[in-house]
Amino acid sequence: MEKLVSLCKRRGFIFQSSEIYGGTGSVWDYGPLGVELKKNLKDRWWNAMVRARDDIEGLDAAILMHPRVWEASGHVSGFVDPLVECSNCRKRFRADDAKIKGTPGTPDVQCPACGMKGTLGAPRLFNLMFKTFMGPVEDTASVVYLRPETAQGIYVNFLNVQQSTRQKIPFGIAQIGKAFRNEITPGNFIFRTREFEQMEMQFFVEPGSDMEWFEFWKGQRLEWHKSLGLDHARLKYHQHTTEELAHYARAAFDIQFDFGGTLGFQEIEGVHNRGDFDLTQHQQFSGKKLEYFDQPNNRRYTPYVVETSVGADRTTLAVLVNAYHEETVEGEDEGRTVLKLQPSLAPVKAGIFPLVKKDGMPEMAHRIAEDLRPLYPVFYDESGAIGRRYRRQDEIGTPFGITVDGESMAEGTVTIRDRDTLQQDRVAADQLRAVLAERLAR
Amino acid sequence: MEKLVSLCKRRGFIFQSSEIYGGTGSVWDYGPLGVELKKNLKDRWWNAMVRARDDIEGLDAAILMHPRVWEASGHVSGFVDPLVECSNCRKRFRADDAKIKGTPGTPDVQCPACGMKGTLGAPRLFNLMFKTFMGPVEDTASVVYLRPETAQGIYVNFLNVQQSTRQKIPFGIAQIGKAFRNEITPGNFIFRTREFEQMEMQFFVEPGSDMEWFEFWKGQRLEWHKSLGLDHARLKYHQHTTEELAHYARAAFDIQFDFGGTLGFQEIEGVHNRGDFDLTQHQQFSGKKLEYFDQPNNRRYTPYVVETSVGADRTTLAVLVNAYHEETVEGEDEGRTVLKLQPSLAPVKAGIFPLVKKDGMPEMAHRIAEDLRPLYPVFYDESGAIGRRYRRQDEIGTPFGITVDGESMAEGTVTIRDRDTLQQDRVAADQLRAVLAERLAR
Repeated sequence: MEKLVSLCKRRGFIFQSSEIYGGTGSVWDYGPLGVELKKNLKDRWWNAMVRARDDIEGLDAAILMHPRVWEASGHVSGFVDPLVECSNCRKRFRADDAKIKGTPGTPDVQCPACGMKGTLGAPRLFNLMFKTFMGPVEDTASVVYLRPETAQGIYVNFLNVQQSTRQKIPFGIAQIGKAFRNEITPGNFIFRTREFEQMEMQFFVEPGSDMEWFEFWKGQRLEWHKSLGLDHARLKYHQHTTEELAHYARAAFDIQFDFGGTLGFQEIEGVHNRGDFDLTQHQQFSGKKLEYFDQPNNRRYTPYVVETSVGADRTTLAVLVNAYHEETVEGEDEGRTVLKLQPSLAPVKAGIFPLVKKDGMPEMAHRIAEDLRPLYPVFYDESGAIGRRYRRQDEIGTPFGITVDGESMAEGTVTIRDRDTLQQDRVAADQLRAVLAERLAR
Repeated sequence: MEKLVSLCKRRGFIFQSSEIYGGTGSVWDYGPLGVELKKNLKDRWWNAMVRARDDIEGLDAAILMHPRVWEASGHVSGFVDPLVECSNCRKRFRADDAKIKGTPGTPDVQCPACGMKGTLGAPRLFNLMFKTFMGPVEDTASVVYLRPETAQGIYVNFLNVQQSTRQKIPFGIAQIGKAFRNEITPGNFIFRTREFEQMEMQFFVEPGSDMEWFEFWKGQRLEWHKSLGLDHARLKYHQHTTEELAHYARAAFDIQFDFGGTLGFQEIEGVHNRGDFDLTQHQQFSGKKLEYFDQPNNRRYTPYVVETSVGADRTTLAVLVNAYHEETVEGEDEGRTVLKLQPSLAPVKAGIFPLVKKDGMPEMAHRIAEDLRPLYPVFYDESGAIGRRYRRQDEIGTPFGITVDGESMAEGTVTIRDRDTLQQDRVAADQLRAVLAERLAR
């Protein structure tokens, strides 16, 4: 992971947030390449889940919601970690912190920070939601939370969406957006962060049909991750045991990806059968009916919900980890680092290179770059040896390298180098758009 | 505006946030059509500013930044509104609130809320940033703010981006993202909200060339708004007078749109020459150099910045206001409401209608819908009279209506209805993809 983190900073995928000020705890900024990679990933999800289907509607609910939402959802009372505090140095620790030897609250236990004995109190519950104050007065009445998940924005809008679109059950509502959790022990680069992005879809179904839809979405979602080019052997399901299952869930599977190293298999998406828990809670807390009227059968009911919840940052990390390779190249002393990103996800689709900076090659290469740029991101590079320029593009996952060389001027041809096979083919310059379109669609 | 707000809710463009709980103050949720309209707008900006240019890089910096950022930027001390508080009822008001008669802090002045005399204190400054606490302890050391603008995320990453991309000055960094301001008097639907989205670009230039670039971007940005189909007569520049100019700005123009009614001309974008204010401040506060090394001239300098800052929600509102029309239709008693959205921005590109629900028409219409759906959003509708179905699509701005009728089955043709001209043309069903592609690109 260290090498990937270093590459991400050096090449502009991901920077530490507010780095010049020493960073912000477990918050990251996406650089020029990272923002394109993540945008490609998010668009891919949006197209698959919303635009390609007529039974899922999109939504973009706000981050700041009414505070009662989080009472209804159970987050105010239940979204908590047990923490212990030192009465001497006021530092707090997770109650299960391995650095604490013994039982906090008893006289012999030492504070891992200041070293005092008997100062660690008994565990208390600490809420993971970030709170802020809306309006001019900072008091309990003005407390609002940064949402810890996007799902609740979907539930409270269930009828707004259903009635405005006239969708019939079964149908879903999908959303991409930021969420915030004040994690005590975040870490592992962008795997667990305090500010993160979710891609969630809530599918509303008739009670009794929920397990069938749960199985359907469980299958669909794994296929989607495979379609990103993630190694099939690095993907698996993890079924929640009775102990792991949230109190509201009727069934839950995680889709896990093998990040390697100490991290190993970790959740990148959760598929949950949430029953009617959420809609029922919001009906109780808001006093508003959130029922569906089944016209043909003339009955009203509260739908069950099957949720698919992807971590956009985690999946971006999975894509990067999966793509990262160090290789030896036949006939060369130096190896290469290459991101074998699927072409559709790669932030830059083609590097355009004049072999040398003379004989009209830069001009022809510029013309090609300007011809292709309206179609997708390309990168023009004339500095340094051609081999070094190839390596730079390999490192950021650019699938194709187009070189203008001595033959180009006379014959109107260029070479296309394939990032993965290293094979170079000579093609007519005026056929480039078509050739690349075909190769990018593979 | 009221009619537009009502249409937006009824048809699923924009809902009040947390509506079932009585709403969240001046926060709005984008529904199924709104999220597509806004996404089309954001993609349009991203393509024009980032993907189509080789001198602008994208960025997606986090909302939560190091608190020192806002000391350096001047927001901690300067992003304030003067407020007065009533010592009796604790309510706060803007010092310039028209409901306050007389000078707050003097004995005769009455509180507009509780009616007590002499209880309103003298104006005090109130910061508009939302604050929260990061980490386990809620104290002054853990205070962080929700960013009130995206720009600072760009400044603190200036060198990270420049060095990872090897861009040479002049070049820009662009970003789309949420920002938050705890406005005391927000309002006018999505015009002024507490949670909003910005599309900002900071262009780094050599001092001395800044006014030239300022003029360039001022022109470019107005053209961009025109390219969205906004009525040219509703767009104008507003130059900041010496009094209006922020202390850091060397020159500033707003691009204003005429929202009509009481709102009138209002800012949808600001173009600012910020000089070296921001980079200099961050150098001072962070102790890190934020200079550019001009290799050919072998000198280092702090670049000047020309900023273009668009309100994504305001521009979405401008697009909706601009598109909204109520018309009488020749030969019909009932008028129609129509959103004359540019086809490229419209959330749904085509409605597909079987004239009647029999004789194979629904099947053929479904086939057409499924053929087009992978290309862009389409809507299949078979319920109600055909005229009513056309009206429904007019109201959400769908540019084309495709009807399968009696002749369709025998002749393999359909009619295409143009939303704006109401003209209907008969075309071969197997030519639909090509015909629509051509009309959508107009």
